[in-house]
Amino acid sequence: MRRLSRSMLFAASLFAAGALYGPEADAAERSDTSVKAVQKIVGGPGFKAAVKQLDADYDRTVADIVTLTEIPAPPFKEEQRAKAYLEMLKAVGLSDVEMDAEGNVMGVRAGTATKGKGPFVVIAAHLDTVFPEGTDVKVKREGTKLSAPGIGDDTRSLAVLLAYVRAMDAAKIRTKADILFVGNVGEEGPGDLRGVKHLFNQGKYKGRISAFFSMDGSDPSRIVDRGVGSKRYRVTFKGPGGHSYGAFGVVNPMTAMAQSVVDLYAVKPPADPKTTFSASVVGGGTSVNSIPNQIFLEFDMRSESAAELAKLDQTFIGILDKAVAGENAARSTKPGVVSYDAKVIGERPAGGTDPNATIVTATAAAISALGFKPEHEASSTDANLPMSLGIPAITIGAGGKGGRAHALDEWIDVEKGETLKGMQVGLAALLAVAGVE
Amino acid sequence: MRRLSRSMLFAASLFAAGALYGPEADAAERSDTSVKAVQKIVGGPGFKAAVKQLDADYDRTVADIVTLTEIPAPPFKEEQRAKAYLEMLKAVGLSDVEMDAEGNVMGVRAGTATKGKGPFVVIAAHLDTVFPEGTDVKVKREGTKLSAPGIGDDTRSLAVLLAYVRAMDAAKIRTKADILFVGNVGEEGPGDLRGVKHLFNQGKYKGRISAFFSMDGSDPSRIVDRGVGSKRYRVTFKGPGGHSYGAFGVVNPMTAMAQSVVDLYAVKPPADPKTTFSASVVGGGTSVNSIPNQIFLEFDMRSESAAELAKLDQTFIGILDKAVAGENAARSTKPGVVSYDAKVIGERPAGGTDPNATIVTATAAAISALGFKPEHEASSTDANLPMSLGIPAITIGAGGKGGRAHALDEWIDVEKGETLKGMQVGLAALLAVAGVE
Repeated sequence: MRRLSRSMLFAASLFAAGALYGPEADAAERSDTSVKAVQKIVGGPGFKAAVKQLDADYDRTVADIVTLTEIPAPPFKEEQRAKAYLEMLKAVGLSDVEMDAEGNVMGVRAGTATKGKGPFVVIAAHLDTVFPEGTDVKVKREGTKLSAPGIGDDTRSLAVLLAYVRAMDAAKIRTKADILFVGNVGEEGPGDLRGVKHLFNQGKYKGRISAFFSMDGSDPSRIVDRGVGSKRYRVTFKGPGGHSYGAFGVVNPMTAMAQSVVDLYAVKPPADPKTTFSASVVGGGTSVNSIPNQIFLEFDMRSESAAELAKLDQTFIGILDKAVAGENAARSTKPGVVSYDAKVIGERPAGGTDPNATIVTATAAAISALGFKPEHEASSTDANLPMSLGIPAITIGAGGKGGRAHALDEWIDVEKGETLKGMQVGLAALLAVAGVE
Repeated sequence: MRRLSRSMLFAASLFAAGALYGPEADAAERSDTSVKAVQKIVGGPGFKAAVKQLDADYDRTVADIVTLTEIPAPPFKEEQRAKAYLEMLKAVGLSDVEMDAEGNVMGVRAGTATKGKGPFVVIAAHLDTVFPEGTDVKVKREGTKLSAPGIGDDTRSLAVLLAYVRAMDAAKIRTKADILFVGNVGEEGPGDLRGVKHLFNQGKYKGRISAFFSMDGSDPSRIVDRGVGSKRYRVTFKGPGGHSYGAFGVVNPMTAMAQSVVDLYAVKPPADPKTTFSASVVGGGTSVNSIPNQIFLEFDMRSESAAELAKLDQTFIGILDKAVAGENAARSTKPGVVSYDAKVIGERPAGGTDPNATIVTATAAAISALGFKPEHEASSTDANLPMSLGIPAITIGAGGKGGRAHALDEWIDVEKGETLKGMQVGLAALLAVAGVE
């Protein structure tokens, strides 16, 4: 993974902000400039025309939400939904519409300055849900409340992106920067950000993205500008096993596992930057009258700081080494030793976008301009990946109310007034960052 | 559970030996008397006629082994095999053939002294196997080697008991004591000795059994005269759970479980009487990014000494209390505390039969008389239960070779010469303890 220094990060954020400011602007100036720029955009005739279009084809947006929600998209099985979304990207008239090797689908709306050659401002929503195959994804409607697994996380955002394209076209809005609209795979747990990892590290847009918006969830007040990094292990402790009575005194992988948990929980990670761990899932053993020959334990470690996460990771590996060595020293290894294998089952880089970066200040200004109060948060989303690369990135909401994400009774409210107001936040922020003629 | 003092136990063992000796006989005398009595039995015309019958209907014994092995008898699901065995007990002409409330099947061969009124010398084999429903129990034959799950543990013994009845009848052997032939349920792990517990503590033979042979496994040299006691727990640690990142700092039942394992493995139990423990099977947790709300761990503790087992048990409960209290003190209990529930999933009393008791000395003499070398062992078998009640009890082998008990490739060798010689051990010991006219 490439890491940029703070000064490079700063330069990159200025680059993304190029449409708005010169490189000399300091933090206060940039914030002030963002507020003015956003107010100008939101108050202008183009934006008003775009909002009129969002209103006019709102039923189509809701229909798209339902259509997409009812196409199952479990982790690693997003293909059917991706294909449908690809057709929708084509239908709204984007250019260069394609599915990449990882399964992401995307299309370009060229800007006046870069004319489709990039760099690109990306706005992405993720195709995958947390729900396994066979989950009933039929949308239930009760008044303006729509319920179905995955409807708010993150299917509504996919439909909102399409609405933005239609609105910009209807309003004849020309941005300076090229915009890449993306429906990406692999945001949820097991996907481990595989979609954005491909987009930034392997795909044809690698090195050509200047700013990244992930639209994820509903709340329009939310700016996720810090990415909580995570590292997850499935550790398998192995030993020779044996009869609980006959082989008593032989090393037990259970003890090495237990010592690892006890020692990890004696670690005191910093509260700021917030750093956490969890011994989460455990299993193993053959019968009550047998010394087990295999025990697994899944561990989760997270931090807002890449350095703290790396430090915790190193401490953890030391704990595993010590626990296994201790067990091999404490009991007989005649029939075999205890060993461990630590398999990384998840790795999301920690990172953050400078709070003074344009993507943050412009989005905060857009949230305020539409009458909401900006809430800066740390979370683990697709934006983690570009953050870790020093590319200005945040995660924002699609607008409207919603709840019970990751639960079978997940819901969104599509009440038109509130939802339309929320939807304008993302559009205003996108236009501010991409720049308008 | 009733526990007898050592003097009561001694009295009981003398009572069982009543057919052979007066109560004044000391240990050396009794051993010497046993040797002479067994030699007299084995050298007599009755025993020779019985052996001739064992030889003559040996093929029938092997056929019975196959028939019974191919009727599945998982723990708690012995009924089909029990019913078949009940019919076999009837067919060999025993009286009072019945199935008791627990599912044991049994029949009486009345003696000349007690005429079916008891007390009874019991010889039992267990009906159950360790194998779950659906296991392929078809017997595979390769020369004299028969393979199938459960064939040696303990199905051959069931067939050998039937052969004894036929042999005694053919040889017109009249014993002084009544003999109760039993096919009992619940010897293996989860059955937790439920068959013999019922026989000795609830059934109609309660208080009427003077000596107990369990025939279990093959080795004819083996005298299990010490019963390894065991206590098994399934401990469930519970806590409030929560998001691994959002709820970090909240108590984790995983840690309480782990501390319990670490503390238990710091205990140094005595090597003599052999005392052991095992943390054997573990499971729990919902996902890698959640603090678990429930973890279970199965523990096995064993000892040749009831006192040491009780002491270890008490230590263990103290460890659980301390581990849970420690976790509740170490982390936040705001959303709820960690607690534990220790469910006893197995309890086999420890015990032993006086090495000078007639059942031991007579069996040792029988083993020697047939050309084997007696091996005194400690184990956990159906004999544990009568031992714990002070009733003279041992476990012996059915004769013949065998191996891989509790494995799918379990096997016995039915080579006639070796097997017939081994089969005579149990018959000679039974006749010595029951007394012959």
